[in-house]
Amino acid sequence: MTTPTTCPIACPTARPIVLTGDRTTGPLHLGHYAGSLRNRLALQDAHDQYLLLADAQALTDNAGDIPKVREAVMDIALDYLAVGIDPEKSTICLQSQLPALAELSMLYLNFVTVARLERNPTIKDEIRARGFGRDIPAGFLCYPAAQAADITAFRATLVPVGADQAPLIEQSNEIVRRINATAGKAVLPEAEALIPAAGRLPGVDGRNKMSKSAGNAIPLSATPEQIAAAVRAMFTDPQHLRTADPGRVDGNVVFAFLDAFDPDAAEVARLKEHYQRGGLGDALLKRRLDDLLQALLAPIRARRTALARDPGHVRELIRRGVQRARAVTGQTRDDVFSALGLFQP
Amino acid sequence: MTTPTTCPIACPTARPIVLTGDRTTGPLHLGHYAGSLRNRLALQDAHDQYLLLADAQALTDNAGDIPKVREAVMDIALDYLAVGIDPEKSTICLQSQLPALAELSMLYLNFVTVARLERNPTIKDEIRARGFGRDIPAGFLCYPAAQAADITAFRATLVPVGADQAPLIEQSNEIVRRINATAGKAVLPEAEALIPAAGRLPGVDGRNKMSKSAGNAIPLSATPEQIAAAVRAMFTDPQHLRTADPGRVDGNVVFAFLDAFDPDAAEVARLKEHYQRGGLGDALLKRRLDDLLQALLAPIRARRTALARDPGHVRELIRRGVQRARAVTGQTRDDVFSALGLFQP
Repeated sequence: MTTPTTCPIACPTARPIVLTGDRTTGPLHLGHYAGSLRNRLALQDAHDQYLLLADAQALTDNAGDIPKVREAVMDIALDYLAVGIDPEKSTICLQSQLPALAELSMLYLNFVTVARLERNPTIKDEIRARGFGRDIPAGFLCYPAAQAADITAFRATLVPVGADQAPLIEQSNEIVRRINATAGKAVLPEAEALIPAAGRLPGVDGRNKMSKSAGNAIPLSATPEQIAAAVRAMFTDPQHLRTADPGRVDGNVVFAFLDAFDPDAAEVARLKEHYQRGGLGDALLKRRLDDLLQALLAPIRARRTALARDPGHVRELIRRGVQRARAVTGQTRDDVFSALGLFQP
Repeated sequence: MTTPTTCPIACPTARPIVLTGDRTTGPLHLGHYAGSLRNRLALQDAHDQYLLLADAQALTDNAGDIPKVREAVMDIALDYLAVGIDPEKSTICLQSQLPALAELSMLYLNFVTVARLERNPTIKDEIRARGFGRDIPAGFLCYPAAQAADITAFRATLVPVGADQAPLIEQSNEIVRRINATAGKAVLPEAEALIPAAGRLPGVDGRNKMSKSAGNAIPLSATPEQIAAAVRAMFTDPQHLRTADPGRVDGNVVFAFLDAFDPDAAEVARLKEHYQRGGLGDALLKRRLDDLLQALLAPIRARRTALARDPGHVRELIRRGVQRARAVTGQTRDDVFSALGLFQP
């Protein structure tokens, strides 16, 4: 006999379904931990959570570097397990192994115009950031439809995303409404973006968000020495030359990290006040942050190292996740094709 | 013990693989018979021929009329069988039931740019013909990549197409070369367009090619009365008012049909000469053509009517074709994903 899990948010009939995941372009870092992994740990007990290792999506702008995309699959799976994702509670699955996602993607492309895809603000920004122009890979232009396929195939109603990704959820819901209107019934649910309250973690250099490609990231597998070096190099306030001087908190990476990781918010508030008043040196703050990060990452690193010794076990977990995800997404594909009235031989 | 079939064209090791098929937007007509069905009958003995009921492609510009797309699947399957396609020799399969096609399509979209898709002359012409502008469905812009998936998934090396479709084969081969270059080996073969010597059959009204949407088609299931009425209404030479007058052969639909269907080419040449000289009336020509078409279509119609009484049998043939096609296309999908080095759990 299993006891039904109580859901903390209002859901009288079933556990809400959450879809989340990561493009497999490199191992995860503290920015991912602060922005999403922590939330996933909190969600996995009371939700049906699917974590998608999004290698097919990674290919949309990395077709020229498939080894990177392949290797990141194992890296990210290790990161998930190391931070405490429980494969019995969260289904870890590999996008390229789920044919129903491609089938729904191709279907949805008929329900969205090229003009609409080009107007998507997320796509616009990313085209600019990647310097694509008109030579954008077609797969990249189409990825909002593929993302709609990911979300709907799992019948997810909650999709944790950064604020900049919210237009993609709106686009997915537009497609859902068109499919439902064509089917004449609500065959697919709309989804809600779950946007974290905290903003994105900055990189150690203080420029933009933390990212591996910008070289300003602390990976979850960082050694004690790498963590210490990153904290030492962290951007603070270049005008704060002597301890006695008043210092700036805004744009100060050490404080952004303390906000993200220090469990004692009251003490962080006191430290900020002291720093702004003058008399508090960077060294003391960095020591505090280094202690915090070393304590946070030591057990993650230890678990990750242990798991990495048995890649066969990790593959087996992914295979099991793929199996479960195939059943769910295949059923949705069948339901949608049948509701739309396609020929069933 | 099976005896190996002798191949009439040079292929020492295996029967060449042919992929062909039809968008499922309506029953087939005499234009299809003259332009492609006849060739398929000739090809099926010495080739591995796959006939794709292309319902997924039909959706790229018919998402608003799915019942039409669904109903045409059975209609076209009946047309195939009625003209003599042998399901033991030719594999009749349904595109939307072959997930590997969608998987390869999504993959290939990463190997072609939006600009390249927009430059495709076939796509350009069709966008203009359908009045799409920028509100073109994304699936329609992307269909050359989907067609590359169709061709390559079956490892087809021969693709019978009209001359206007030849750029699509070139586009498919471009994708093949990119995939092979990325894989570092020839995982996919290039394909050759098999362009019929005869031009397209005109519609009975003499305007453009025969098509159901233009209302100028003679369906393969036409009744004797419909055939007779179509031949009576057929456009000839509006200046040819009296039998004694010289008449024009160019643009004369009756002669185009005689060229396509009359087995006695020498007699047709004599009739043309007589008509141009004067003294040959339309009525005599139309009688000859009516006799020919009645004789051609009577057995096709009879088989079609008999087959239509047992749709369950036709469904079963499609199911068997799907099963065979799934094995072939699934293997190609696995080969391509593995050759490219995607993660295999």
